[in-house]
Amino acid sequence: MIRKPTLVLNEDRCRKNITAMAAKAKRSGLQLRPHFKTHQSLEIGRWFKEEGIEKITVSSLEMARYFSEEWDDITVAFPVNVLEYATINELADKINLNLLVESLDSLTHLNRLLTGDINLYIKINIGNNRTGIDPKDHSLITRIVEVIVSSKHLSFAGFLGHAGQTYSCRSKIEIVETHAKAIGIMTSLRDVFKKDFPNLKISYGDTPSSSVCDDFAGIDELRPGNFVFYDLMQEQIGACNSEQIAVALACPVVAIHSARNEIIVYGGGIHLSKDSMHDREGRIFGRLIETNDQAWGEIIPKCFVKTLSQEHGIISVSDSLLKRIKIGDLIYILPVHSCMTANLMKEYLTTTGRKIEMFNPLSA
Amino acid sequence: MIRKPTLVLNEDRCRKNITAMAAKAKRSGLQLRPHFKTHQSLEIGRWFKEEGIEKITVSSLEMARYFSEEWDDITVAFPVNVLEYATINELADKINLNLLVESLDSLTHLNRLLTGDINLYIKINIGNNRTGIDPKDHSLITRIVEVIVSSKHLSFAGFLGHAGQTYSCRSKIEIVETHAKAIGIMTSLRDVFKKDFPNLKISYGDTPSSSVCDDFAGIDELRPGNFVFYDLMQEQIGACNSEQIAVALACPVVAIHSARNEIIVYGGGIHLSKDSMHDREGRIFGRLIETNDQAWGEIIPKCFVKTLSQEHGIISVSDSLLKRIKIGDLIYILPVHSCMTANLMKEYLTTTGRKIEMFNPLSA
Repeated sequence: MIRKPTLVLNEDRCRKNITAMAAKAKRSGLQLRPHFKTHQSLEIGRWFKEEGIEKITVSSLEMARYFSEEWDDITVAFPVNVLEYATINELADKINLNLLVESLDSLTHLNRLLTGDINLYIKINIGNNRTGIDPKDHSLITRIVEVIVSSKHLSFAGFLGHAGQTYSCRSKIEIVETHAKAIGIMTSLRDVFKKDFPNLKISYGDTPSSSVCDDFAGIDELRPGNFVFYDLMQEQIGACNSEQIAVALACPVVAIHSARNEIIVYGGGIHLSKDSMHDREGRIFGRLIETNDQAWGEIIPKCFVKTLSQEHGIISVSDSLLKRIKIGDLIYILPVHSCMTANLMKEYLTTTGRKIEMFNPLSA
Repeated sequence: MIRKPTLVLNEDRCRKNITAMAAKAKRSGLQLRPHFKTHQSLEIGRWFKEEGIEKITVSSLEMARYFSEEWDDITVAFPVNVLEYATINELADKINLNLLVESLDSLTHLNRLLTGDINLYIKINIGNNRTGIDPKDHSLITRIVEVIVSSKHLSFAGFLGHAGQTYSCRSKIEIVETHAKAIGIMTSLRDVFKKDFPNLKISYGDTPSSSVCDDFAGIDELRPGNFVFYDLMQEQIGACNSEQIAVALACPVVAIHSARNEIIVYGGGIHLSKDSMHDREGRIFGRLIETNDQAWGEIIPKCFVKTLSQEHGIISVSDSLLKRIKIGDLIYILPVHSCMTANLMKEYLTTTGRKIEMFNPLSA
């Protein structure tokens, strides 16, 4: 019995998402190295192992340490934080650790502080303009490669890019176009360096392009993460449909305001996260689905999370939902951004009633 | 030595905020019942005890249970979640527990499920339009009061309102006007019911009005919470100045992009929260302060958190900061919404290097 905000995981949907992405990577001849920052769970990680996945991506060194219990090849897809050299050295002794660099300064620190061996990808900016080196700056890239190959503890693994700009797309065609440009940048760069480094790898991937596109020629490795659960944002982008969304926040109804077609639930920004998206109703923070025992149904029309306080969710509801909703009922909310919701909730309850634990930095 | 995103607490500023609010409440003849959902910490709670505070507010029953270790009079300022009746009964046996109702349905559930005695405030909508009964609906309020007074385990405590609409104010004058309207509603309601219930209490309070206003005539109890730390949003509202903001997220610099005046820090949406505000530069997620050993300085001009990913903070920086910042440095970010940041970080490090624990629902 659920009595407070609870992140419910539809294991069936989740496993289908994993199976589909693993099959697609296999079909395309790609190494799938899924990003585990979305689910952050050893147990869900084992569902990937059942699909033959052996290598993973995470977003922090602490998360790498958590997953190093069961995984021995981990990429931390984040510009290396040189202050955490002790954790890097600890992990380097234990697993095949792949990190990202994008500056000579970071390399100088690593050369001074490392005692264990690591592989380095050079982070390339392929249009997202968040991190990474300008792909046209061959002189800087060459200097970084030179320092890596002349360093005792460093190996040059290849180039890594993240086409996060696909999150601005709102159709499959837009995603395909954005993706084509991004992989064009990566493969051109490989062409420049492949004579000297025939084994360099091109690592790439985000959930929209990995879900929608079929042409990955020139890419070695795919790193999507969010697809394990998907969410409303991915549905809006065009990367999934709502029946693929595998997590929902169950929230008790605590107040009903019929005059303004609103209900108040226990479930706020500290549960769902304040991530929002613009949709036909304006800014929304989630949508409701029908639930019937263990089965999840359709999105309920004309109902959405209008705003969130710390613990309150304010839900705009249709006349028909208003008629049947009662104090003490549970509603199920599909999140706008499942990564952020999972990170806040720190555990899952499956639709079959099993608790699933996840990474908790406080106990790391 | 800080090596990863860390919520640093300036104890001196925090204690000054507590002292100032306690003094103001005393001066105004008000019972201060601070809201502890912001700091969520037993240790910080003890700083309030030093100021003579004996009663507190929290936002969930689980948080009430955490604080019931050291506090014996707690109001859960949230429409009662009847599904958690077991926790209510447990707490009712242990402390003086005050809950909120706003419907007859909730009362029906309580009457069926309660085994312990609780005090009930009726939640009144005083303009925030989130929760609460329309203050003009005397007939519903009267019926609710009647049910409460005829119930075995329930006592009628009074009316409770939250003028959350002060968060939309952007000057002290606006706050004072909004506040005057809100307390006008509360005191009119008291006038209607005071003949039959001469001891009913009026509980009121939010950080903007509690910080700025001086006229609380007719109010018994004040429940601000955020003032313990304040934040950039409160500064923008006009409730504090930046020297009163008592928490900052320390973040390691991991990348520098001089060409676009940006630095990337380890510190993202899972640390700072995705709460944002509109300011002269557009939408921002935080601002940087100068730090010098244990002393915090001014806000650094022309620098702000431009956007946040899960673990990345993208900071727009001035030319002068760009010149002196290096990979591996720490920057200190003032949060837009300190409640959400504290809730994510789940612990504090004081500027003097002491760790302070806080409530963690997973261990509750």
